[in-house]
Amino acid sequence: MSYNKYKKYSGVKLTNRQWPNKQIEKAPIWCSVDLRDGNQALPTPMNVEEKLKMFKLLVDLGFKEIEVGFPAASNTEYTFIRTLIEEGLIPDDVTIQVLTQSRDHLIEKTFECLRGAKSAIVHLYNSTSTLQRRVVFNKTMKEIIEIAVHGAKLFNKLSKKYPETNFTFEYSPESFTGTELEYALDICNEVLKVWEPTPSRKAIINLPATVEMSTPNVYADQIEWFCNNISNRNSVIISLHTHNDRGTATAASELGLLAGADRVEGTLFGNGERTGNLDIITLGMNLYSQGVDAKLDFSNLNNIVGIYEQCTKMTVHERHPYAGKLVYAAFSGSHQDAIRKGLLAMKEGENQYWEVPYLPIDPHDVGREYEEIIRINSQSGKGGTAYIMESEYGFILPKAMHQEFGAVVKDKSDSLGIELTPKQIFGLFKEQYLDKKEPYKLKNYEIQSVQDVETEENTVNIQAVIAVEGVDRRIKGVGNGPLDAFFNALHINHIINCKFVSYYEHALDGGSHSRAVSYIQIENNNKKYFGVGISENIDTASLNALISAINRCE
Amino acid sequence: MSYNKYKKYSGVKLTNRQWPNKQIEKAPIWCSVDLRDGNQALPTPMNVEEKLKMFKLLVDLGFKEIEVGFPAASNTEYTFIRTLIEEGLIPDDVTIQVLTQSRDHLIEKTFECLRGAKSAIVHLYNSTSTLQRRVVFNKTMKEIIEIAVHGAKLFNKLSKKYPETNFTFEYSPESFTGTELEYALDICNEVLKVWEPTPSRKAIINLPATVEMSTPNVYADQIEWFCNNISNRNSVIISLHTHNDRGTATAASELGLLAGADRVEGTLFGNGERTGNLDIITLGMNLYSQGVDAKLDFSNLNNIVGIYEQCTKMTVHERHPYAGKLVYAAFSGSHQDAIRKGLLAMKEGENQYWEVPYLPIDPHDVGREYEEIIRINSQSGKGGTAYIMESEYGFILPKAMHQEFGAVVKDKSDSLGIELTPKQIFGLFKEQYLDKKEPYKLKNYEIQSVQDVETEENTVNIQAVIAVEGVDRRIKGVGNGPLDAFFNALHINHIINCKFVSYYEHALDGGSHSRAVSYIQIENNNKKYFGVGISENIDTASLNALISAINRCE
Repeated sequence: MSYNKYKKYSGVKLTNRQWPNKQIEKAPIWCSVDLRDGNQALPTPMNVEEKLKMFKLLVDLGFKEIEVGFPAASNTEYTFIRTLIEEGLIPDDVTIQVLTQSRDHLIEKTFECLRGAKSAIVHLYNSTSTLQRRVVFNKTMKEIIEIAVHGAKLFNKLSKKYPETNFTFEYSPESFTGTELEYALDICNEVLKVWEPTPSRKAIINLPATVEMSTPNVYADQIEWFCNNISNRNSVIISLHTHNDRGTATAASELGLLAGADRVEGTLFGNGERTGNLDIITLGMNLYSQGVDAKLDFSNLNNIVGIYEQCTKMTVHERHPYAGKLVYAAFSGSHQDAIRKGLLAMKEGENQYWEVPYLPIDPHDVGREYEEIIRINSQSGKGGTAYIMESEYGFILPKAMHQEFGAVVKDKSDSLGIELTPKQIFGLFKEQYLDKKEPYKLKNYEIQSVQDVETEENTVNIQAVIAVEGVDRRIKGVGNGPLDAFFNALHINHIINCKFVSYYEHALDGGSHSRAVSYIQIENNNKKYFGVGISENIDTASLNALISAINRCE
Repeated sequence: MSYNKYKKYSGVKLTNRQWPNKQIEKAPIWCSVDLRDGNQALPTPMNVEEKLKMFKLLVDLGFKEIEVGFPAASNTEYTFIRTLIEEGLIPDDVTIQVLTQSRDHLIEKTFECLRGAKSAIVHLYNSTSTLQRRVVFNKTMKEIIEIAVHGAKLFNKLSKKYPETNFTFEYSPESFTGTELEYALDICNEVLKVWEPTPSRKAIINLPATVEMSTPNVYADQIEWFCNNISNRNSVIISLHTHNDRGTATAASELGLLAGADRVEGTLFGNGERTGNLDIITLGMNLYSQGVDAKLDFSNLNNIVGIYEQCTKMTVHERHPYAGKLVYAAFSGSHQDAIRKGLLAMKEGENQYWEVPYLPIDPHDVGREYEEIIRINSQSGKGGTAYIMESEYGFILPKAMHQEFGAVVKDKSDSLGIELTPKQIFGLFKEQYLDKKEPYKLKNYEIQSVQDVETEENTVNIQAVIAVEGVDRRIKGVGNGPLDAFFNALHINHIINCKFVSYYEHALDGGSHSRAVSYIQIENNNKKYFGVGISENIDTASLNALISAINRCE
């Protein structure tokens, strides 16, 4: 591949770089550009109805600044913005933002479109990059500055014409990352001279990585340099607008915030031209997961995905951070085991903070379920199987049983070459344990139990009928409990010759009529086998479990 | 949302941070973990046949290190690795890598699985994180080190047992980013003491962001600190293995390389548990686009996407960097116009390097097409339309016509609310210009042309029959050329009263029988109109173009 046709991007030389020493301590001012930068990149742009739905979603999520369109560029956008204003759909604490190029008739139409709005950000841009000045505009640096300044002046004039609206001005040196940094600063300072912002009436300077051209640290260096050098820093809001051409838009925005920016523009799930814009949900959740109040509500991510996919006809990828279908799923056995232990430790209240291996956040926080966390395939070990049996079916398998049943599940998954569903796993459990009724089957039994609680002298006599390969046999035995008596009866009648290893039992359902499930492990010819029995009668459950174990001996 | 349940991640305090001053000058050693870390995260893991196909793809792309499985964990993986070795499918310059936990029977099975391989990397790991030590293993720091050292020793022993294989050893302190940095260093140094690597027989120390827990600069700080503090740095290959939980795996790997790492592990398109691993294609293309030889061949990305989707049953998102369906498409009119001019400037050979606005790389480099770049929807301006007309149909519209026809396309797209296909655009062109045969239609004409080339005295007499609302009229005129004569004939017969503005004509097809297309602009009642005519006869083309323009007057 002909890598020589590309040249290395060169950044700014910072002498006293500060941003790598910092952490993001608070949420930036968020501005959604879903309805403009996002919408313009859709193969099927949103119609007015879909835009209204998207606008409502953005308001519900907590956005206070929403770019709603480029009203002078398309009738659809103009109509949509008029609908928002005329039908009173913009909450008092939400400011709409509109984009315009620096051309008189476009700026005039833009202000005209905003008439009656309570507040609005008018966003002026022109491309300032070295490349575009040469191949697109064929203009000098000075001429490009004049374009911006001319538009900025018209902004001042028109804002006086519409005094009922509280205007904020925003300027973007478009293709900022392709512009000589000092020149980008010059043009922004010239625009600011026209607007004369103050600390109480700030202007927004937006510094777009219109095309992502470097590693994100270089962008951060540029932002830090810019913040250090812009006039009237305390009267200016520095805004970031990153794109994802190199897959590092989130990082670039994060490092840009470390470098001093106040505000970010982006979209839900990073929709936007080419590889898209900054994904505000990812950045917001990144802050959230570090204990920072993101000031946006992503507690029902599935709902956000649904509306987004409906309006944009785009999809959210299965591995999309925080929102993808697979991101709370663990496939590896060791991961599953660790998650299981981590969740248990959380439940036991050992931690002040959320700390579960392989789960950077609690899926419940975004309306996702623990049930989705564990899937079973040929890569999974015992932990996942046990988790499914407990979370989906209420069977708390004894620890020693995890390996035995885990191996059964893994073999099945290996041979099928697919992930098993919880239902398939339960099917295997039933087949392996509960349905093992051959060659032995317990048909009925009677117990006489004499218990002296003080002396702890306990005697249990059992008489039972078991079918052996279909032929009934009556057996008797004595022991200190029903299971012991039954075990002895099987022994003295030479039906079994195995050792008793362990026994577990728990209620399977709630309430007094709950069924008990019993797990019994025996050892036969140096191999160990579990059996499982279920009954409303706890004795029957355990006798059945013993029979199940015997039937499973090889 | 309850952000208070999360605690802030704290990084290492670097005193003399160097990485932000650096650039990536060469490709790292690449290791694909598609067949292991990637495969284990698939709802439907690859079967042996699919694994073989994926392995072949990875070899074809140029990977020299490929992690092929965790042979002690699953029969499928064991069988696959034996197949690779026994059927001689591993090229001599490719080294397979296998993963194992630090348990004797797993390590023994791992080495056994590798018998007969020419070279192999055996990758030992155990989890070292604070959290996992407490909730999963309940072991002290010392005990966790003992686990790793015990495994490392067994590696030494078993590598002697299989002398025909050239072994390289790799150790990962799993969940490195959740581990106290000094402790991670200790455990790695202890393992290295056992392995005693040399500059000619290096060991690999892999530092996984098993879960991405911080902004990528913090990971880079950790890597720089680690590189500065590890024993025998020149005998050790420092490897990165990032995950994408915060959407910044690419950035973390890039900054980690700046910080001194030599090697990265990752997968195609970032497949892997949860949000996935590092996407090696994105990182590789990022290097490539900066003039660095990535040493991987992504020149047929569509083919890579195809095999990947077939084997993994996952999809590559439409906005995936470099590979997504939409990433070489521009929707905005100003972008389209700029791209058009940038492509033209490239064609005219003005640039040494690739420089086109909004196209960070030449799509041809990865087997993608310029045709995909421009799509038309209600957001698009004139540039896109002109581009489609030229690239798809060969009509080089005069510049002054871009705006007129662009507005027609935009109105249509606005009213339909959808993107228009090139075919729909051409349909509009035909309807608007070529099929305008009312109220005037040219039926036939005769020309007498007297041309004195020396004196440049040219006289053309025309006699034409035109139908006016279906009624034939015979008209005559004189001029210095056929068009001029026809224009005059229309004037003196009071059929038109407009001004002639401009005229363009070009051959539409190749060869001597090529058709000509003529574009004529006239002005009527202070409004300008284009008309278009096509014919094998260049005179007819221009007369038709004039009639088309006249018919289009309002």
